[in-house]
Amino acid sequence: MSISAKDIIGNYELVRRQAPLVHNITNYVVMNLTANALLAAGASPVMAHAPEEVEDMVAIASALVINIGTLSEHWVEAMLKAARQAKIKGIPIVYDPVGVGATPYRTRTIHELLQTAAPAILRGNASEIMACAGGGAGTKGVDSAAAAEAALDSARRLNEEYGCVVCVSGATDHVVGQNHTAMIANGHPMMARITGLGCTATALCGAFAAVNPDSFAATVSAMTVMGIAGEMAAKKAKGPASMQVEFLDALYNITGNDIEQRLKIS
Amino acid sequence: MSISAKDIIGNYELVRRQAPLVHNITNYVVMNLTANALLAAGASPVMAHAPEEVEDMVAIASALVINIGTLSEHWVEAMLKAARQAKIKGIPIVYDPVGVGATPYRTRTIHELLQTAAPAILRGNASEIMACAGGGAGTKGVDSAAAAEAALDSARRLNEEYGCVVCVSGATDHVVGQNHTAMIANGHPMMARITGLGCTATALCGAFAAVNPDSFAATVSAMTVMGIAGEMAAKKAKGPASMQVEFLDALYNITGNDIEQRLKIS
Amino acid sequence: MSISAKDIIGNYELVRRQAPLVHNITNYVVMNLTANALLAAGASPVMAHAPEEVEDMVAIASALVINIGTLSEHWVEAMLKAARQAKIKGIPIVYDPVGVGATPYRTRTIHELLQTAAPAILRGNASEIMACAGGGAGTKGVDSAAAAEAALDSARRLNEEYGCVVCVSGATDHVVGQNHTAMIANGHPMMARITGLGCTATALCGAFAAVNPDSFAATVSAMTVMGIAGEMAAKKAKGPASMQVEFLDALYNITGNDIEQRLKIS
Repeated sequence: MSISAKDIIGNYELVRRQAPLVHNITNYVVMNLTANALLAAGASPVMAHAPEEVEDMVAIASALVINIGTLSEHWVEAMLKAARQAKIKGIPIVYDPVGVGATPYRTRTIHELLQTAAPAILRGNASEIMACAGGGAGTKGVDSAAAAEAALDSARRLNEEYGCVVCVSGATDHVVGQNHTAMIANGHPMMARITGLGCTATALCGAFAAVNPDSFAATVSAMTVMGIAGEMAAKKAKGPASMQVEFLDALYNITGNDIEQRLKIS
Repeated sequence: MSISAKDIIGNYELVRRQAPLVHNITNYVVMNLTANALLAAGASPVMAHAPEEVEDMVAIASALVINIGTLSEHWVEAMLKAARQAKIKGIPIVYDPVGVGATPYRTRTIHELLQTAAPAILRGNASEIMACAGGGAGTKGVDSAAAAEAALDSARRLNEEYGCVVCVSGATDHVVGQNHTAMIANGHPMMARITGLGCTATALCGAFAAVNPDSFAATVSAMTVMGIAGEMAAKKAKGPASMQVEFLDALYNITGNDIEQRLKIS
Repeated sequence: MSISAKDIIGNYELVRRQAPLVHNITNYVVMNLTANALLAAGASPVMAHAPEEVEDMVAIASALVINIGTLSEHWVEAMLKAARQAKIKGIPIVYDPVGVGATPYRTRTIHELLQTAAPAILRGNASEIMACAGGGAGTKGVDSAAAAEAALDSARRLNEEYGCVVCVSGATDHVVGQNHTAMIANGHPMMARITGLGCTATALCGAFAAVNPDSFAATVSAMTVMGIAGEMAAKKAKGPASMQVEFLDALYNITGNDIEQRLKIS
């Protein structure tokens, strides 16, 4: 199965028309950017992390995004509660294993999440995906530069074990589904100089999964839109901060034409 | 009583001259934006949420702003402590009932706050204000699009019950005081695409209430300044992220002339 | 010992080349800005605050930055754990005593940190440094305007007691080492209108300390780079929000020439 520009454009139109409520339990560093990116893309973000309310919030949401970038005891408790509730309600879950491999706590937490509730989509960089699969690649914090290719075996194993689409982000993003893999060459190196763009990609996966039950198509759509918005932004940016501003503006302004002309998928 | 451009300009000059310390207990998503907006407006923001210190911080503050956008047990405890202390110290309290109606936990919390310490000002969107008043309007997360007009009865009831000024934000903002209501038609639709501008409006209400004991005039001043800065920003913005940058710059640069020429109040 | 433009340029090249992992336990308000500033400068930021993982994160980091801007019980516990581990591992610690003096809780916390693990660098504004030294200067929240000069005695006492370099930020920054003091006149008044630029300076001190064991040179390098980037930004900014964007872009683009031509150190 291959995803065409037309499919991606159609999916983005669904996000913009349906404005799905995406419930995020994410890290402190990126919350603002993530919420703004979801709004720019046309989705409706909500953040809630109290064990007292996550189940109620999941109940009205169309997707759940869990990002382990800044953990603590009560947050992990809330993540597990929310994930269980999402399975009961049948809404798609997306995990972002930020910094897995850097500390045993993160590794334990992502495994507990994966085993409690298999996600529709798992998105991370190469070293994070390898660490999720039990690889001892070692990570240097949250911005590992390992090539996405190195994590393809891990991605395939995780796909088999949990039945989820696995996206390995990098200069080229690899999206691994059950019977097919897509490689996306869109994007720009300056994106790595903005904190939280990986987390933003994960949140966008949630927005697309909320409107399209085909997790593979949803992930490919989210990642290509991210990459194309990044390319459009880089043409105007003078550094990483103006890059972030231009990126969000591009996410808002991106047209079918932009997607058709820039798409680099194979 | 009607508020004139001259009143608003005078109030804004007070904020800029006195630089009142505004103590915020607010949600993670908007903290940075809120602090920057208060600084741009000339106020002095401080964030503190530990039960161990909120009373001491309230003691040196000129206003207390409580926003329930991301709750948890210890935060609610701190909010209640801070609110009680603010009543004792006699400084104005402003509540922002973010997402009330979305989960019972939020609804319980705002009622506990309202009953523990009646605020000077309560600001929310239509569905939040209806939910505060016990209406079962239901909310779609935190970005409800219900028209402000629909919440006017709720606003009047809350004003009577708690003696507070109630501001219902929307395309037209409605400010409900004891004997008078103001309608503010300033603002721009793009403002809804930036996370936390409602929370920012609430924080500005706190800054104006800190320098003007007339809560109605303070609220009207804050909301008109917000709306006018939004209009000025929209003329230059190319999307939601540049809109946010231009908005904060406008808040900083706005002059008496801008207010006089753009004010749409009735 | 005097620090030359050449020294500073050399230190900045080390940061960019080594991309040291800087572990931040910092406040919610500035996390995003701090991470983006470290990335723009070429360092690798990581945020982690759970007592369950801070020691593991310190173990792979090259510097630890602790900022007490938003405290709570578990965070203080994690800060102490991380600080102890940093001493064991021998990596430099930098403290930012945000708002010390405003509440007894903050004052207690910074003293507990100082006594548990003396830092390589302590950076604050004048009233914070005076409060750290036991002075009752009183603070108005976190944006005190007391002149840096007023805190020089306190800085010298703290330097003697804890053996750390003390930086007092202000219109002129004063860096106090054991046998020498530097005064840096770079910077721009608009920087005070952006929340978290002080915290950002502290984080940059961490990045420079990670690549240079001479804490005095590291602090001077960080503070001059901050000030020069601020000056470059102010030339293009139209208000505090565009100032922040321009500042981060300048941090990324700053060249040896910029440093040589603008350096104002004595």
